[in-house]
Amino acid sequence: MYGDYSYLHLGEDLDFSQHLVAIFRVKASVDLKIAAEAIAAESSVGTWTHLSTMTPAKFNFLSAKVIAIDKKSGLIKIAYPVDLWEPDNLAQLLSGIAGNVFGLKELDSLWIEDIIFPEKYVRYYEGPAFGVNGIRDYLKIYDRPILGTIIKPKLGLTAKEHAQAAYEAWLNGVDLVKDDENLTSQPFNNFYDRVSYVLELKKQAEAKTGEKKIYAANITAQPDEMLRRAQQVMEHGGGCVMLDILTTGLSMLEYLRKQDYNLIIHGHRAMHAALTRGHDFGMNMSIIAKLARLAGVDELHIGTVVGKMEGSRQEVMQANKELMKPWYGLKRVMHVASGGLHPGLVEKMVSIIGKNVIINMGGGIHGHPGGTAAGAKAARQAIDLVSRGQSLKEVLKTGKYPQLNKAIDKWGMA
Amino acid sequence: MYGDYSYLHLGEDLDFSQHLVAIFRVKASVDLKIAAEAIAAESSVGTWTHLSTMTPAKFNFLSAKVIAIDKKSGLIKIAYPVDLWEPDNLAQLLSGIAGNVFGLKELDSLWIEDIIFPEKYVRYYEGPAFGVNGIRDYLKIYDRPILGTIIKPKLGLTAKEHAQAAYEAWLNGVDLVKDDENLTSQPFNNFYDRVSYVLELKKQAEAKTGEKKIYAANITAQPDEMLRRAQQVMEHGGGCVMLDILTTGLSMLEYLRKQDYNLIIHGHRAMHAALTRGHDFGMNMSIIAKLARLAGVDELHIGTVVGKMEGSRQEVMQANKELMKPWYGLKRVMHVASGGLHPGLVEKMVSIIGKNVIINMGGGIHGHPGGTAAGAKAARQAIDLVSRGQSLKEVLKTGKYPQLNKAIDKWGMA
Repeated sequence: MYGDYSYLHLGEDLDFSQHLVAIFRVKASVDLKIAAEAIAAESSVGTWTHLSTMTPAKFNFLSAKVIAIDKKSGLIKIAYPVDLWEPDNLAQLLSGIAGNVFGLKELDSLWIEDIIFPEKYVRYYEGPAFGVNGIRDYLKIYDRPILGTIIKPKLGLTAKEHAQAAYEAWLNGVDLVKDDENLTSQPFNNFYDRVSYVLELKKQAEAKTGEKKIYAANITAQPDEMLRRAQQVMEHGGGCVMLDILTTGLSMLEYLRKQDYNLIIHGHRAMHAALTRGHDFGMNMSIIAKLARLAGVDELHIGTVVGKMEGSRQEVMQANKELMKPWYGLKRVMHVASGGLHPGLVEKMVSIIGKNVIINMGGGIHGHPGGTAAGAKAARQAIDLVSRGQSLKEVLKTGKYPQLNKAIDKWGMA
Repeated sequence: MYGDYSYLHLGEDLDFSQHLVAIFRVKASVDLKIAAEAIAAESSVGTWTHLSTMTPAKFNFLSAKVIAIDKKSGLIKIAYPVDLWEPDNLAQLLSGIAGNVFGLKELDSLWIEDIIFPEKYVRYYEGPAFGVNGIRDYLKIYDRPILGTIIKPKLGLTAKEHAQAAYEAWLNGVDLVKDDENLTSQPFNNFYDRVSYVLELKKQAEAKTGEKKIYAANITAQPDEMLRRAQQVMEHGGGCVMLDILTTGLSMLEYLRKQDYNLIIHGHRAMHAALTRGHDFGMNMSIIAKLARLAGVDELHIGTVVGKMEGSRQEVMQANKELMKPWYGLKRVMHVASGGLHPGLVEKMVSIIGKNVIINMGGGIHGHPGGTAAGAKAARQAIDLVSRGQSLKEVLKTGKYPQLNKAIDKWGMA
C-alpha cells in the first residue's frame, strides 16, 4: 500500500502483450516492497498520498504493477500498461521508466537491468532502414567483417587533409571512414567543405578499387541543422551519416530516421558510460542498444570485447544480442567495435563476435609505422585472413604480409 | 607523454579567455598523470599512438592541456582551446568533455565537478528569453515565491478533467500549473485537446482572480512535433511550454529557444540522477544547470533541499548559484523546487533558497484532506505568510487559516 492504493501484484497473471516489463536492481533504506511501490508509483500514475482526483478505475487502468520481488538479489519486476506510452516518443518512455525514479530518496541504488517490450510497442517503430543486410548489400561484402577507420587526429586536420586521409584509407582496403564524435563543424574543418571534399575522393577511391565505400559524416547538431547536413551528404552522393545519439538525444535519432533519406545511420554512443558504467544509478548498455534499434539506427557502437574502452565481454555480447535477435520483424543492427583496436586484436574479436561487425581502427591504422596506407593494408589483411579461417600466428611466420607483421610487432597480438 | 606528445602543462600561464576549463575527480589504476593525459587526449585531439597525420603545430593548436593535478583529492584540471567547440552545439561539447572519457579503461571513476566557460563561449548562446525577471513581469509577482502545482495523478485524467483540476488550483491561489514529465500526448489525454481545454479555463481563472496564470504544457516529442505543440500553445494564448530537457536532449532545448516563440521554457530534468547521483561516473547537477541556462531554459528543476527527492542542500544550492550568478549578461534562471513538497516545508525552504523559486506541490496540494481547492489555498497561505516574514508556527495557533492547519496536521512541518 502506497498512498491509497497497492501497486503489488505479486504472482498475478498478467497479459504480457499489453505490458512493458522493466527489471530493476534496487538497494534501499526501506523495505524492498515499499521501494518497489515507490518506483512503480513515480514511473506511472505517481500518487504517494491520498488524492481526491484519483479513482480506482483510473488507477487500475494506468498504474504500474510490481509483479516480482527477489529480496536476495534486489531484483524487482514492474509491468507498465502499454497505453502509458506515447508511440514514437522515446523521450517520454525514458522520462517515465528512467526519469524521476533515479532521484527517489529511499533508494541507495537503482539499476535498470532490462526493459522487455511487447510486440505492440515495438511495432510503433520502424527500426533500421538498412540494418545488417542492407549495409552488406550496399557494400557488397558478405563474407567478412567491415573494416572502418576514424580519421585521426580526432581534431586538427583541415577539411582537405581529412579527405586526403580518408582517400588513402579507402585505397588501401578500408571500407568505411567515419568522423570522430567531437568533430562536427568547426572553423578549422567546416562540415560542408569536408563532405564535399571527402565524397569527391570517395568516388575516386571507388573507381580505383572497384569496391563500394562508406563515409559516416557526423551530422550531430540542432535538428534543422542536422537535416541540412544530411541533405548535404545526399546531394554529394554520400550514403551514410553519423549521429552522437546520446549527447544529442534519442528524439533526434527518431526524427532523422523518420525523414526516410535512404541514408545508413551510424550511431555513436559518446557519454554512454556515464549511464552504463557506474555501480549505483544507471542502466545496462543493452537497453540503450534496444532503444537505438527501435529508433532506427543501422550500426551502433557497443564495445570491443578487447581494446582501450571498458565493457566486459558479457556486457558487450548482451548488447550484441539485442542488436541481432529476431524482434517482431525489425531489422538487425550492425555491431560497431571501436576504441584502441589494431590488427593484432582482429582474430580474437572475430572468434567472439563473429563476422557481423564493423571493426573500427583509428590509431591502429594511422599509427602504423608505415603510415595510413600501410596501416590500412595491415588491417584489411588481418580481416581477410581471419575471415578465411587462417591463423594469424601462422601467417606472420610466412612474411608474406609485411605491413601486418609490422603492425603486430608494434602493438602485439591478443 | 602520451603517444608522441605531452598534454602536461602544469603550472603554465594560460590565456583563460581562450580556454574552457573542466575539473574532473579521478580514481585510476594508473598514475594520475597518465590518467589525466588519457582524458585530455580522448576529449580533444585523441592520439594514443604515433600518428603520421599529426604535427606539432596542429597539436599545440587544438590539444587539451592538463593544467593541474592534485594527487590527494584526485582532482585534475584540463583546459580546452575554445576553438575546439562548435557554437550552438551543446551535444558536441558533451561528446568531447563528457563523451568517451567515461569509458576509458584506466579509470576506476571519473566525475566532472565543474566546467568553467570563458566569455567567448558563453556569448555563443543567448540564454533565457525571460529568466527570473521576465517570469516575474509576466506574472506581476515581485515579492514572494511562485506557487506551482503538477496535476495529479501524473497520468489518468482525461484532458477535460486535467483542465478542471488546473482551473480549481488557479482559482484558489496557484500561479503555475504544469504537466507531469511522463504526460505528453497519450490516447487517454491528447495534447491538443488538453491545451485547448486548459488554456480556455486559464483565461477564465485569470478573469475571476485578477491574477495572471501560467500553464507549462509538456511538449516533449520529436523536433517537428515539439514545435507543433508549442504552436498550439501560442495559438491558444498560452505563454509557457515545458520540456524534459535530458531525456529528449539539450539539442532540442537549443532548437526550441532559437524559435523565439516568446514562450517561457520550463525545464524538467527527469533522468538527471542517473548522471548526477552515482559515486563513480557522472557529473554534478550544477553543470546540467549551467548548460540548460546557456541553451535558454527560463525555469529549471534543480531540487528542493527538503522533500521526497535526493539532493543535498549543498548540491541544490550549487546549482542555484549557477542559475543566479552574473554570467556575461545572460539572464538568471528561476529555480523550480518539486518533489514531495507540502505547505509545512515552505518556511524552511524559503529560509534557505530565498524568494526566487517556483515551489511546486503535486500531492501536497491535491492530497489535502479538503481536496485540490483547500490544498491550493493552504499552499498559497503558507507562501504569502512566510513571504511577509510571519512564523507559521505562530500563525497556526491563531486558527485563522483552517486549510493551512489541516495541511500541517496531515504532513507535519520541517
